[in-house]
Amino acid sequence: MRKLDINSKGHLCFGGADTVELAEKYGTPLYVVDEKQIIGRCREIKECFLDKYDNANAVYASKALQTVDICRIVTEEGLGLDTVSGGEIYTAIKAGVDTAKIIFHGNNKTADEIRFAVENNVGRFVADNEYELHLIDGIAKEAGKTVRVQLRITPGVDSHTHQYISTGGIDSKFGISPVRSERNRIIKYAMDSESIELTGFHFHVGSQLQKNDSHLMALEIILRLIKEIRSELGFVPTELNLGGGFGVRYVDGEITVKLRDFTDPMMERINSFCKTEGISLPEVFIEPGRWISANAGITLYTVGSIKEIPEIKTYLAVDGGMPDNPRHILYQAEYEAVVANKASIPAGKEVSVVGKCCESGDVLIEKIGVADTVQSGDILCVFSTGAYNYSMASNYNRIPRPALVMVKDGKDRLSVRRETWEDMITREIL
Amino acid sequence: MRKLDINSKGHLCFGGADTVELAEKYGTPLYVVDEKQIIGRCREIKECFLDKYDNANAVYASKALQTVDICRIVTEEGLGLDTVSGGEIYTAIKAGVDTAKIIFHGNNKTADEIRFAVENNVGRFVADNEYELHLIDGIAKEAGKTVRVQLRITPGVDSHTHQYISTGGIDSKFGISPVRSERNRIIKYAMDSESIELTGFHFHVGSQLQKNDSHLMALEIILRLIKEIRSELGFVPTELNLGGGFGVRYVDGEITVKLRDFTDPMMERINSFCKTEGISLPEVFIEPGRWISANAGITLYTVGSIKEIPEIKTYLAVDGGMPDNPRHILYQAEYEAVVANKASIPAGKEVSVVGKCCESGDVLIEKIGVADTVQSGDILCVFSTGAYNYSMASNYNRIPRPALVMVKDGKDRLSVRRETWEDMITREIL
Repeated sequence: MRKLDINSKGHLCFGGADTVELAEKYGTPLYVVDEKQIIGRCREIKECFLDKYDNANAVYASKALQTVDICRIVTEEGLGLDTVSGGEIYTAIKAGVDTAKIIFHGNNKTADEIRFAVENNVGRFVADNEYELHLIDGIAKEAGKTVRVQLRITPGVDSHTHQYISTGGIDSKFGISPVRSERNRIIKYAMDSESIELTGFHFHVGSQLQKNDSHLMALEIILRLIKEIRSELGFVPTELNLGGGFGVRYVDGEITVKLRDFTDPMMERINSFCKTEGISLPEVFIEPGRWISANAGITLYTVGSIKEIPEIKTYLAVDGGMPDNPRHILYQAEYEAVVANKASIPAGKEVSVVGKCCESGDVLIEKIGVADTVQSGDILCVFSTGAYNYSMASNYNRIPRPALVMVKDGKDRLSVRRETWEDMITREIL
Repeated sequence: MRKLDINSKGHLCFGGADTVELAEKYGTPLYVVDEKQIIGRCREIKECFLDKYDNANAVYASKALQTVDICRIVTEEGLGLDTVSGGEIYTAIKAGVDTAKIIFHGNNKTADEIRFAVENNVGRFVADNEYELHLIDGIAKEAGKTVRVQLRITPGVDSHTHQYISTGGIDSKFGISPVRSERNRIIKYAMDSESIELTGFHFHVGSQLQKNDSHLMALEIILRLIKEIRSELGFVPTELNLGGGFGVRYVDGEITVKLRDFTDPMMERINSFCKTEGISLPEVFIEPGRWISANAGITLYTVGSIKEIPEIKTYLAVDGGMPDNPRHILYQAEYEAVVANKASIPAGKEVSVVGKCCESGDVLIEKIGVADTVQSGDILCVFSTGAYNYSMASNYNRIPRPALVMVKDGKDRLSVRRETWEDMITREIL
């Protein structure tokens, strides 16, 4: 059961702020992010990983939730930034992030993006495939620079998650095949290039994982590869990137995994491997995204139409939906919610929470109990929307994207203003 | 087989324009819309429906693809506009659309949206449910106006389409139950209100339908309801709205349905019903969206990484993906594509077309044959992207949304400029 912070008015509080007052002040739908929870996760990473191990390095996978504010907060807390596009690098730069701490990911970086990253001295490129490696090499050469590169290896490990976010299988669009002839040719190219400093390897097995077995299996494959590469090509990595994918609790039955349950066994294995092989411990990276931001965010909606279909179901329609949170229609993702202005009233009424889009799939929560006195005009809080909501939002049905408010110890401030109807046609040539 | 228009350079042409030149001129990814095909569909509607039948009325369901230009074109061709939000009404007004020709849909219109629509004298409100009817009534009263209202009835008909876009079932979030006590109470309320002119009923059974059977079944239910309502409440509708949902061809095996295959049998049935019942023929509305715009649009991409996984598959990654076209990841939608600069080269190579997002589900086409000489830097044209692509686009992975170019008889003009990295942070409070 989720523990709720309820004040004397019976209102739900989040980050110390009265959510009903936030809804009144900023309007709905409204993304609310608790700065302290973001910081709390960063500090857990510091404590159980960065401070605990030599050569440990963590970057925030900013595609989960990227704003200038978030970039600033996580980097102030000692994390680097995992980015996946020129747009994300641009935002990080606007936040004043030291570009040396940026890692640039992606299976198909464009030449323009790579050029921008090279010009701005982005710390590391994760080259996804042979074509991209050549492209990075050529652009770095042209710029007269040497760039640090990690090669993404497909470990061939299937993770237990939704197929859309399982990324480590041998048939994945991501990464370089671990097959000898293939990988050796590519690694050799990187070793021989004067514009590339090959530092090591990256793997990523999937997203929202509750168990560490896929990570550990993938690690074994990468370690074997390192051993083989060393003997075949004489290359010893100075960096090893374990990716992200650490799961969080959305609903009962799930847990927000302890990071150390993933990192401790991996670090132990890496250390013993290095000792056995007589090589130095490489710099080890992890890339949590969802794990940092998902639970730090909520979305506040105003309840509109309530439609009871006798003996079938009750629809509770809110003033947002799939444009601000497409995760249910995309992945059948589950969420919990509470009527924020009736937070202490027992959840005696079962409803389907749906959005305002002209689309049947525009559902936020298939089935949930809410206060039995719920009525139009109430404020509904949907939990754990801090990852892949703001970042995936669209203007479907020409619905403006919500504002995003940061809260911390009861204080609130606007971080992203609400989109207007005018904003939505600003790119049109009238 | 799709017929291609190929010029002497072997380049694919669309709307008379060389697509490779369009890609060079405007960059990629690029939405291209053929004005003439939009007009062609509007004229088919005019010929087989508007001019053929008395009291026939057609509105374009603009959620499929709404820009100021498109609003202008379809209304100049004699159609009205089906809108689903304040944002869509705002855009229509910016396009100079006569608001009397606008229909306002949605299952959860907000009070602000209704107020805006009332103030701007929007022609018709389709009230989705009892709550909304009362809301519309109250706002119209406040404004001292009388608004025309159609009531959306749930026909209880399941259509043969993806569950996300099947909207007519009895358990749908849309519409008023046809159950007597329920519907009669709601209809009576509308009849009695001084601020509401109840004109009739609306139904919609689903989207992308290839057969007319769901429409005809739903029509029977609505006609029976009209008969009952007449005897029970003495109400005779002056308007009847048959919705949209007319399917188009995306890939081989599908057809772009003949509109008359839907409208002719429905009009015949409505006419005979009115004769039998001794009532005047109501004004009959249809609401095609996808049927007008889907095939009129293509998306041009530049091919980046090509990754061959021996004996498994070849990935062809383009510089867009689920942010500009989420229909595959949402509905497993299928598309056809051709290498635009090698349009006459036989499609001898089987590939998976994927996007540049850090997400395994970021697939555009699962399996398709393309020119066997395809290489990085080529231009890939994906067909039939004129509906629910521009309108559903996001900035996922902080990827800017593409430009949209209108072509007509070989002439091109920019209609929506490309989004910039700067645009994407313009709402942030720095």
